Amino acid sequence: MAILIRDVVLGGEVRDVKIEGNRFSQMGSTLDCSADTLIDGAGFALVPTFVNAHTHAAMTLLRGYADDLELHEWLTQHIWPLEAQLSEEDIYHGTRLACLEMIRSGTTCFNDMYWHLHGTARAVTEMGLRAVLSSVFIDFFDEQKAIEQQALTRELHNECENYSDRIRFALGPHAIYTVSESSLCWAKAYADENELLLHIHVSETEKEVQDCLDLHGLRPVEWLDRIGLLGSNVIAAHVVHATDAEIGILAERGVKVVHNPVSNMKLASGSFRYSSMIDGGVSVSLGTDGCSSNNNLDMLEEMKVAALHAKLVERDPTVLPAAEAFRMATMNGARALGIDCGEIAVGRLADCMLVDFKHPRLAPGYDLIDDLVYSADSSCVDTVICDGKILMRHGRIEGEEQIVEEARNYAKRFGR
Amino acid sequence: MAILIRDVVLGGEVRDVKIEGNRFSQMGSTLDCSADTLIDGAGFALVPTFVNAHTHAAMTLLRGYADDLELHEWLTQHIWPLEAQLSEEDIYHGTRLACLEMIRSGTTCFNDMYWHLHGTARAVTEMGLRAVLSSVFIDFFDEQKAIEQQALTRELHNECENYSDRIRFALGPHAIYTVSESSLCWAKAYADENELLLHIHVSETEKEVQDCLDLHGLRPVEWLDRIGLLGSNVIAAHVVHATDAEIGILAERGVKVVHNPVSNMKLASGSFRYSSMIDGGVSVSLGTDGCSSNNNLDMLEEMKVAALHAKLVERDPTVLPAAEAFRMATMNGARALGIDCGEIAVGRLADCMLVDFKHPRLAPGYDLIDDLVYSADSSCVDTVICDGKILMRHGRIEGEEQIVEEARNYAKRFGR
Repeated sequence: MAILIRDVVLGGEVRDVKIEGNRFSQMGSTLDCSADTLIDGAGFALVPTFVNAHTHAAMTLLRGYADDLELHEWLTQHIWPLEAQLSEEDIYHGTRLACLEMIRSGTTCFNDMYWHLHGTARAVTEMGLRAVLSSVFIDFFDEQKAIEQQALTRELHNECENYSDRIRFALGPHAIYTVSESSLCWAKAYADENELLLHIHVSETEKEVQDCLDLHGLRPVEWLDRIGLLGSNVIAAHVVHATDAEIGILAERGVKVVHNPVSNMKLASGSFRYSSMIDGGVSVSLGTDGCSSNNNLDMLEEMKVAALHAKLVERDPTVLPAAEAFRMATMNGARALGIDCGEIAVGRLADCMLVDFKHPRLAPGYDLIDDLVYSADSSCVDTVICDGKILMRHGRIEGEEQIVEEARNYAKRFGR
Repeated sequence: MAILIRDVVLGGEVRDVKIEGNRFSQMGSTLDCSADTLIDGAGFALVPTFVNAHTHAAMTLLRGYADDLELHEWLTQHIWPLEAQLSEEDIYHGTRLACLEMIRSGTTCFNDMYWHLHGTARAVTEMGLRAVLSSVFIDFFDEQKAIEQQALTRELHNECENYSDRIRFALGPHAIYTVSESSLCWAKAYADENELLLHIHVSETEKEVQDCLDLHGLRPVEWLDRIGLLGSNVIAAHVVHATDAEIGILAERGVKVVHNPVSNMKLASGSFRYSSMIDGGVSVSLGTDGCSSNNNLDMLEEMKVAALHAKLVERDPTVLPAAEAFRMATMNGARALGIDCGEIAVGRLADCMLVDFKHPRLAPGYDLIDDLVYSADSSCVDTVICDGKILMRHGRIEGEEQIVEEARNYAKRFGR
C-alpha cells in the first residue's frame, strides 16, 4: 500500500512525497515512481499532524454539560456523578466522537487517561488514530481497592497486546490526592519493568499543593521525587504550581510535562510557568485535557491559547513564538510519548495533513506556521493521514454522520 | 424578497422563521405562508450573527507578516512601513478577504477604523455585510495636518451617503498620543452635531497611560473626560489600564467599551478588568482588533478567549459565563453601534446564521450557547444571512476563490 502526494508545499518548497506502508519513504522535487493512491497536492501544504499529549477523550460526552462552575462543585456535583453512569459502550461512543473531532482538527495521536479502556481502544482501532492509553488508577488510599486496581492494570496490559500497533498501554495513577504512596510506587515499578509510560496529573491546583505540604511538608514534585516516582517515562500533566526548585527536579529526572492552557484557564487553576520550564530544561508538550474543561480537542486552538497565555502572564509579546508552539504540539509531544511521528522526514511514521492555501485564513500566506498557530481553524484542514492511511479526504470522514447521531443521544439521556 | 426558514431550532424549540425585506417578519411553530426562498432548517439552529465591535478589516493583508515582536519594533519597523505602501485598491482587496473570513465565522457587522475608507466601503457594499466605518484621523499634533484631516473627514462623510444603508460613517480619532486636543474636540463636536459615533483607542498600553500622566497629570479616561470627549456616542477600544475611578467615569458618560482579549494578550498590552467594568455598569462589547495582532477575525474564538482570560486573571472559573460572552458578541455590540441587529426577533434586522447540529463539536448538545462559545469553530457555520440576504449557503460564498487568489499576491509583493 503506497500513497504518492504530488506537488505539495513542504517546508516552503514544492515536493513530491511518497508513503510506503506506514512510513514516509521518499521525498524530492519530482519523484519518478507510482503508487496505489495518488494525491494532487497542488495548492496545499503538507505538515505533521498534532500530538495531543494529555486528554480524556471520551469526555466529549460531557461537553457543555457543566460549565462556568467552581472546581469542587463542578467535579463532585456534575462530572463525577455523570461519569459513574458511563459504561464501556458509552466510552466507545464518546471516543469515536473525540477521534472524529481530532481528525478534523489535524490530530492523529493522543495520550489518554480514562475509564473502560477497552471502549477507548476499540474506538481508536476503528478510527485509525494512534494513542497511548492509560486506565485511571484510583485507590482512594484503600488497600483492598489498590489490590483490585493492580490486578486490573495487569489484565488490561495483557489484553492491550491484542490491539493494533497504534495502541500502547501506559500506567495511569490519577494524582497524589487519589492514589496511595504504595500504589504510586507499585505503578512506577510496573512501568519501569515493562518499559511503559506513566501518566499522572501533577500540581494542577493550589489545593493539591497545600494539602501535600500539610501532609508531607513537601510540595508535590518534591514529594513525588522523594518516593522515587519521577523519571523519563513519566508524563506529568498540568504542573501549574511549580517552584524553581521543582522545575529543577523535573528537568533532572527527564519528566515530560504537558501544558494544558485552555483547561487551566477555564477552571482558573493557575498560570503555567512556560519560560521558567523551558529555561530550566524541561520537556514541554501540549494537551487539550478533556472536553468538560476545554470544551474541544482542537490543538490548533490550544497552540494559539498557549502562546497568548504565556505572553499575557509573562508580560512579553516575544515569549512562545509561533514556531515554538507548533513544535510543542507536534515533535515535543511525539518525543514525550516515544512515538516516531511529529515531523515529515524519510523513515518517520506517515502522520501528516494537507492544509488548503485556498482558505481565506491562510492568506496572504507570509508564514505558514504563523498562520497555522494564530489564524487557522479546523476548516483549513483538507486531508489527514495516519500510519500511512487516509483518515479524512477533502473534509470527509467515513461514517461521520452516524457517530454524531449516536453522540447526540447522550443529550437526551443526560440533558436537563 | 422573502426567505422562509422551516423547522429550525430557535431558543431550544423547532420554529419557522420568515424574513421579509431586511427584517424578521414572522415566527411560529408552523407558519402558513410562502416565500421566494425556502431554507430547510431541520437539523440546524438559528442564532444571531456576531458584531465585531473593533477591528481594522483590511489588515488581513498583514496577517502573519510580523508576529511575536516587541510592540514598538512591531509597529515602527514592520506594520507602519508596510501600511504606508497600501493604496485604496489594496484596502479594497484586504477588506474583501476580511469580509470572507467574517462571513465564514458568522460575523455580519463590524466597527472599522482604517485608511482609504472608500476601499473598505466598496468591499463591504459588494460583500453584503454591515459596517460602521471610520477613517483613521491622525494629525501628530501638527496644525496643518489637522486642517487637512478635518477637511477629509467632512468629504468622506458626505461621500458615504452614496453607499448602501448597511454602511454608516463614524469619526475615527486614533488615540490621545496621535491626535491633538483641538482635533479631538473638533471630532467630538462634529460627531455630536451629525449624530455620528466616535471610535477611538483608549488606554491600550501602559506607556499611553504614563505619557498622559506625565503630560497632563491625569490618566487617559480622566483627561478625555476633562476635555469633554466622552459620551454615549463614543466607542472606546481596549481600555486595558483603567482604575476604578476611570471605570466610574466611563459608566457615567455611557461610553461603549470594546474588549479585545486576543490582541491584548498577543501584544502583552495588559489585562482587561472585565468584572470591574461590568459591576461598574459599563457597556462592554467584543472585538477582534486587526489581523496583525490577532491574527484572524473570528468572533467564536474571541468569545472563548474572553471567557478564558477573565477566569484566569480574576482567578474565578464562574466569571464571564458562556451566555454573557455570547451576548457581548451579539446584542452588546449591536447596541453599542446603535444597529437594530444582534438578536432574532420580529421587527429586528435579519442578520442570522444556521449552525449545523451534525457537526461533531456541537455534540452531544446539552447547551447550544455553551457549545458555540467553548467548542465551535467556523466549520460549524453552514449558512449566513445579513440584511435579509443569503451571504453563505452550505459553507459556499460566491467569488471566494478569486478573493483569496488576489490576497495571496500580497505575500509575493511584501513577503521576505
